[in-house]
Amino acid sequence: MRLIESVSEVQAIADAERAAGRRLALVPTMGALHAGHLSLLREARRRADRVWASIFVNPTQFNDPRDLDGYPRTLESDLAVCQEAGVDLVFKPTAAEMYPADSQTWVDVGELTLPLCGASRPGHFRGVTTVVSKLLLAAKPHVAVFGQKDFQQLAVIRRMVRDLGFDVEIVGAPTAREDDGLALSSRNQKLGPEQRRQAPCLVRALRAAEQAVAAGEYSAAALLQLVRNEIAKAPVARIDYAELRDPDSLVPAPARLDRATLLALAVWMDPPQAAGAAVRLIDNRVLQLQGDSQ
Amino acid sequence: MRLIESVSEVQAIADAERAAGRRLALVPTMGALHAGHLSLLREARRRADRVWASIFVNPTQFNDPRDLDGYPRTLESDLAVCQEAGVDLVFKPTAAEMYPADSQTWVDVGELTLPLCGASRPGHFRGVTTVVSKLLLAAKPHVAVFGQKDFQQLAVIRRMVRDLGFDVEIVGAPTAREDDGLALSSRNQKLGPEQRRQAPCLVRALRAAEQAVAAGEYSAAALLQLVRNEIAKAPVARIDYAELRDPDSLVPAPARLDRATLLALAVWMDPPQAAGAAVRLIDNRVLQLQGDSQ
Repeated sequence: MRLIESVSEVQAIADAERAAGRRLALVPTMGALHAGHLSLLREARRRADRVWASIFVNPTQFNDPRDLDGYPRTLESDLAVCQEAGVDLVFKPTAAEMYPADSQTWVDVGELTLPLCGASRPGHFRGVTTVVSKLLLAAKPHVAVFGQKDFQQLAVIRRMVRDLGFDVEIVGAPTAREDDGLALSSRNQKLGPEQRRQAPCLVRALRAAEQAVAAGEYSAAALLQLVRNEIAKAPVARIDYAELRDPDSLVPAPARLDRATLLALAVWMDPPQAAGAAVRLIDNRVLQLQGDSQ
Repeated sequence: MRLIESVSEVQAIADAERAAGRRLALVPTMGALHAGHLSLLREARRRADRVWASIFVNPTQFNDPRDLDGYPRTLESDLAVCQEAGVDLVFKPTAAEMYPADSQTWVDVGELTLPLCGASRPGHFRGVTTVVSKLLLAAKPHVAVFGQKDFQQLAVIRRMVRDLGFDVEIVGAPTAREDDGLALSSRNQKLGPEQRRQAPCLVRALRAAEQAVAAGEYSAAALLQLVRNEIAKAPVARIDYAELRDPDSLVPAPARLDRATLLALAVWMDPPQAAGAAVRLIDNRVLQLQGDSQ
């Protein structure tokens, strides 16, 4: 497994691999690798001859500097995980390599970045789209794999790639989960025991809505009330947003659902005795209506 | 000479050429080709095995819709010029190919785009950087050639390429000129006879400043006064901006020049009897100080 820090070096390797006719897959990560990343790497392996992972904790996508400082950094174990997973190359640039002095160029996506996490985390998606552009320009992959857990991020990246004409296929991989349903996330490491115990409230809320839809409940208000009721059962949980939106355009769903609809959820898990930090978790599900074949 | 309209098709050709070890040069144009473009194509030929030109009148870089409507479009003669110049491939996408429905992604450069043409033409550079990103992602060239006449555009594109890590060399080619010194520009076609006769006021102003610097005049105010005096000799000319700035950062020059300094000039050539349209011309020169070896 090669470990590369320089953009120009990874570009030269990409050129050589592409010239040799090999198909490259990139899995961009911020490190703190867990089983969710492994499922992305497996998806990449199914689609390419070479699997590359990038590890870069991107400062520009953190709207809160404490969040950046506290983000888990576990490089040694990350490299071991990549080795074990058969990754061919790890691209691990420095911040100075990704953001040269006096950097002043941004890639911005419009409407899709305004609601949901875009509203809660101003500037977040600008950081994401800018760094993903840089990673795609560096690694020149044929395919890049992202998790569906970050649904809006995936939608924004798909739109950016389509709009600018990046020659890459964007693949969304299903969310990996713990036995109790909690979506895997590097942020789960930050949960205290009580926060962790209550964290499956997100997936329970999603399932409750899904079951209600299956039983014929298409009222957006009724479904969101169900979601709020489920979250309320977890005393340390506090809703950041719970919304029903079109999965492609992310515009708000009508009062009565008439097609497959995204249910997107962000929840703060507060520390039980004001000791420790609040951790923000997200999860989502696309609610399928009966007879809807998406 | 191949004529390609589709992004995915030109990407496939670029991949094949790159895999075969051939070096690709792109000359992005908005058509209305003239001898200035020919000098860019010759520069491209010196640096690559394949010379590609793009022809696309980019709507998003026109802040004034009348300017867009009136921009000269001369496709047949453009293709003949390319053929004659030995261009290997012309990429001529439609607007829908370059801007898919609901496009909402922009590439933005910051401080460098604020003064000069950025101040006179709000939104212009966002259109330029976005379309140049798309053209680079489509044609995947090793080198791209731009004219030094559009000095700020060249500086902005260089910065964008550096900041995002595009794997392309940006080359600035010297400004081609008419016998009387007028910088070649597609907009020159729009000049009426009297406007055309007076248009060399720009280059005369640049030369006056250059000669003054050579004679030891380093006062910014004195140099700009010389420029204004020269322009004032042309009754139909009206200054949009005349500024001295650092050639790299584009920050304003100090009151007394202490290094090589950009003199940038934009001038409206008004129609002599309020009949016809005003035409905006730009030109520039980097003033070299004695002992300065740039």
